Amino acid sequence: MQKNFERLASDRHSKARRGSLTTAHGEIDTPAFMPVGTQGSVKGVSPRELRELTAQIVLGNTYHLFVRPGLDVIKHFGGLHNFMSWDGPILTDSGGYQIFSLAKLRKITEEGVEFQNHIDGARAFISPEIAMEIQLLLGSDITMTLDECVSYPCEYDYAAQSAEMTTRWAKRCADWKRQNEETAKRGLADSMLFGIVQGATFEDLRKESAQAIVDIDFDGYAIGGVSVGEPQEEMMRAVECAEPFLPGDKPRYAMGLGTPPQLLELIARGMDMFDCVLPTRLARNGTAFTAAGTLNLKNAEFILDKNPIEGNCTCEACRGFSRGYIRHLIKAEEILGLRLITLHNLHFYLNLMKQARTEIEKGTFDQFRKAFVTEYKTRDAVAVE
Amino acid sequence: MQKNFERLASDRHSKARRGSLTTAHGEIDTPAFMPVGTQGSVKGVSPRELRELTAQIVLGNTYHLFVRPGLDVIKHFGGLHNFMSWDGPILTDSGGYQIFSLAKLRKITEEGVEFQNHIDGARAFISPEIAMEIQLLLGSDITMTLDECVSYPCEYDYAAQSAEMTTRWAKRCADWKRQNEETAKRGLADSMLFGIVQGATFEDLRKESAQAIVDIDFDGYAIGGVSVGEPQEEMMRAVECAEPFLPGDKPRYAMGLGTPPQLLELIARGMDMFDCVLPTRLARNGTAFTAAGTLNLKNAEFILDKNPIEGNCTCEACRGFSRGYIRHLIKAEEILGLRLITLHNLHFYLNLMKQARTEIEKGTFDQFRKAFVTEYKTRDAVAVE
Repeated sequence: MQKNFERLASDRHSKARRGSLTTAHGEIDTPAFMPVGTQGSVKGVSPRELRELTAQIVLGNTYHLFVRPGLDVIKHFGGLHNFMSWDGPILTDSGGYQIFSLAKLRKITEEGVEFQNHIDGARAFISPEIAMEIQLLLGSDITMTLDECVSYPCEYDYAAQSAEMTTRWAKRCADWKRQNEETAKRGLADSMLFGIVQGATFEDLRKESAQAIVDIDFDGYAIGGVSVGEPQEEMMRAVECAEPFLPGDKPRYAMGLGTPPQLLELIARGMDMFDCVLPTRLARNGTAFTAAGTLNLKNAEFILDKNPIEGNCTCEACRGFSRGYIRHLIKAEEILGLRLITLHNLHFYLNLMKQARTEIEKGTFDQFRKAFVTEYKTRDAVAVE
Repeated sequence: MQKNFERLASDRHSKARRGSLTTAHGEIDTPAFMPVGTQGSVKGVSPRELRELTAQIVLGNTYHLFVRPGLDVIKHFGGLHNFMSWDGPILTDSGGYQIFSLAKLRKITEEGVEFQNHIDGARAFISPEIAMEIQLLLGSDITMTLDECVSYPCEYDYAAQSAEMTTRWAKRCADWKRQNEETAKRGLADSMLFGIVQGATFEDLRKESAQAIVDIDFDGYAIGGVSVGEPQEEMMRAVECAEPFLPGDKPRYAMGLGTPPQLLELIARGMDMFDCVLPTRLARNGTAFTAAGTLNLKNAEFILDKNPIEGNCTCEACRGFSRGYIRHLIKAEEILGLRLITLHNLHFYLNLMKQARTEIEKGTFDQFRKAFVTEYKTRDAVAVE
């Protein structure tokens, strides 16, 4: 496989890495945050705004797009990039996570998973090969192997068998892609394929899974099953167990994570890529991220507040609008309110990654991380009271 | 009063006028469409987008802002312009229309109207003087007199008495503004005051009301009570009855109207300014305006449609997105869908006014109007089938 990932700098005090990932639709500076465009749109945000926010890649959810509008539609439009008017890189998940969290009447076999979708209940079947075919048809720049994402807590025996099946599925994905890529993508750009490490909260399973997945050889590696309700210590330990097995010259993606401090902790543990719905989901509930923790802008304390969400922030919301006005919009259920908080929150996450990259380059990432985590936790605890 | 309105051109075949209205926050080219910012935000749209759409003025609803966030809040922020970060002209209504359409337990007396608001049921009282005080506190560039907007159909005797009371209220507004403006506006910019003609669907009442309101002498004149469910012929007749009494050198505002063909018909009848929730409200339901009539983008016929909403349109939605994608967004309840249609619809209305201004200047407005109305109606009828 071609060399897609370049390591530009490494932190001396942690495993943090500064890198650059090359895709068919552009470069991605890592550590990178990927806004989530579940149904072909990052909720509340236009592609132009994503560009202005300096987002370099967005995530699409294969399951959602498979269910609605359906693959025939996206194929007709020439792939997801054309459909959603986003010409930057796209990463798609395999659909596995949503099948296991949203769909009904799942039946998992070695062959694949049968389910009824949550929209109209139609039956469907996805195998590792079908997951690959779908993602190549979507035109993803980074595709993911089909995995089973077990729930938390999970019995050891089930987790072990599931992780082994996930490995066999990963192998089938890699094989299928090698044999069918040219036909499947039908003129769309070249894609990468990332393997996913599973193993629930069991250290030996995480290690075994990481070793087995790496043995297959992928363009990058993801840690899956780490945003399923487990305590933060278990999440971090799962990453720490798998990380030493992952080759240093490939990108690492911690799936579905996390809070701002968690992202910095994961970067310190050698992770490069992140996706998370928190910035967009919390925005719709009136919650904004700041370096001092989250603010619930619905609170009465903000009624007369002329300050922007965050004083030194350069996002569109903070350049033009007060907390008091945004609070009014949220209370009055005006769309502009959630739009402004969404822009701020995405800016916050993307800017945090930018800061992390700079600090790694400067060799000061570890101090930065510690100071950020302390400041964030302290004031957040105060704000919650 | 100072001269705010300049007539730049007149149509030879109709009463259409091309003019320019000067306010404390900028010029307004007439005929003008004013996007409706009910609660201090044009639904779904940011002030920056309004500028890009070339909107020159927005409307604020006094009743809504009075109820939420409340006047103390807007006063604290230094007026509505500052609060909502819109530095262009703002017209506010007096609150009358919403009191009569939204509030509960109304009690109308000569003194004013007592009501319970529709949000928390709190009791409030608004008189002509209070309506002026509120609008000056909001910092409106164009304020409106308090009027009673009767429902349709309306008994002649009630309509006659109501129109007479509206005239007395208008006189009280003008008197109060003259005596209290400097104190009330507290350093905010100078405002204009428009009187409102009422009289329901009765020709003699419309004429009497117009004459009486003009006798008071306002900066501009509005036709009220014309968007309350009456047939289009009655709407047009109400305007036609009042218009000859309105001085030619003052702007005329047809309140709460209308569809695109109606706007052109009203321009032909000497109207200069319009506000209407149709472009934003219909957008939220998936309906887009085109020169060929409205399109309901929820319809299955658009699933695979790669065309923009309107082929020759230069709006942000039509420059970048297909009908098929927007349909998907609307069906999936993605906010971007209603945002894109809202941008298109506002562009359509604003561009229609721009075309009307150009056609009046060129002396070809009448042909333009006839061709537009014919094209719009024909295809709309087809689309409805």
